[in-house]
Amino acid sequence: MQSYTVYLTRNIPDRRDFVNITDEVADAVRDSGICEGLCLVNAMHITASVFVNDDEPGLHADYKRWLEKLAPHDPSPQAYQHNRTGEDNDGRSPHAADHGARGGGCGHRRQARLRPLGALFYGELDGRRPKRVLVKVIGE
Amino acid sequence: MQSYTVYLTRNIPDRRDFVNITDEVADAVRDSGICEGLCLVNAMHITASVFVNDDEPGLHADYKRWLEKLAPHDPSPQAYQHNRTGEDNDGRSPHAADHGARGGGCGHRRQARLRPLGALFYGELDGRRPKRVLVKVIGE
Amino acid sequence: MQSYTVYLTRNIPDRRDFVNITDEVADAVRDSGICEGLCLVNAMHITASVFVNDDEPGLHADYKRWLEKLAPHDPSPQAYQHNRTGEDNDGRSPHAADHGARGGGCGHRRQARLRPLGALFYGELDGRRPKRVLVKVIGE
Repeated sequence: MQSYTVYLTRNIPDRRDFVNITDEVADAVRDSGICEGLCLVNAMHITASVFVNDDEPGLHADYKRWLEKLAPHDPSPQAYQHNRTGEDNDGRSPHAADHGARGGGCGHRRQARLRPLGALFYGELDGRRPKRVLVKVIGE
Repeated sequence: MQSYTVYLTRNIPDRRDFVNITDEVADAVRDSGICEGLCLVNAMHITASVFVNDDEPGLHADYKRWLEKLAPHDPSPQAYQHNRTGEDNDGRSPHAADHGARGGGCGHRRQARLRPLGALFYGELDGRRPKRVLVKVIGE
Repeated sequence: MQSYTVYLTRNIPDRRDFVNITDEVADAVRDSGICEGLCLVNAMHITASVFVNDDEPGLHADYKRWLEKLAPHDPSPQAYQHNRTGEDNDGRSPHAADHGARGGGCGHRRQARLRPLGALFYGELDGRRPKRVLVKVIGE
């Protein structure tokens, strides 16, 4: 069994945004030399997420609006008890948190498996500071 | 390390439905010959999901109603900007998307680990066309 | 490839509660002797979950309130068809279900990777009976 790990770092200027990281993850899989296995892509912060979807701006706008409706931002301690700690991120982001463990592969085979899924995104939910994404490839 | 991959294909006549795929996944684990490892079951489309729950019709009816309340279907471009692309699936399904990475095993041991979890389902959220589910077993 | 499996058991006196299981999972990783790989932590019940977040009581109170708003508890068969089976857990919990597959490691390296993520929790959604969490470490 082989293993290969890299970290991607993102410093998103907005509080919330979605950034396409497909190419960097594909590079990691290629650099790993692993032909058959799994690639785990995981945000290293509780106020961030990783998800798969189309790279379409309207969809991302829908996401932001839908998340705001589902868990409205409100820094007051009345809205979220978690804000009494001095944090103002509402503890909201884990609701949207996800991580991607996908089947890997080699060369064209790997790409064929990603294609119908769309693109891989880093979802920032409390930005304005550097944050990391773990990319770990395991297999042979 | 050994690896074994199969794809299940489903063409669901309705837009939304939930289909029990437990037996086919169990067959894949058995056919893999792998006794100890992980089985990744992952929908290869952003408008589909995989989840674990009881095989109980009332529960599935509750799911459909709850999802409709959480993210109502509305093909108009006013409701979801994503619909301006000509798609009418609202970009809703990823909200419910999940994937199952479960500990595998051999023979009775494997079954014992699945049993308390209920059954494994393919959750269709934009059907009426053939779609695929990746089943990948990794281990020894 | 090596594999190491343990089960944690919890009998939570309340219907819903969140319990920090970070130390027990870290113990399992250490006991496995595996330096590089994955650790799968998975609730063995459909009315339970595993998630990563801060160990902060206000946040947990927010969770409980937010989940109640998202999928209110109501044991009547009018509220949820699933309740007609005689169960009163509403089929709610899967909405919050998650599982954690994290990159493992050895000694200080492993801890360094968990630290920015906060703590690992067992999320009970239908307690008052013994339930199990699978902890499976795979790697080398």
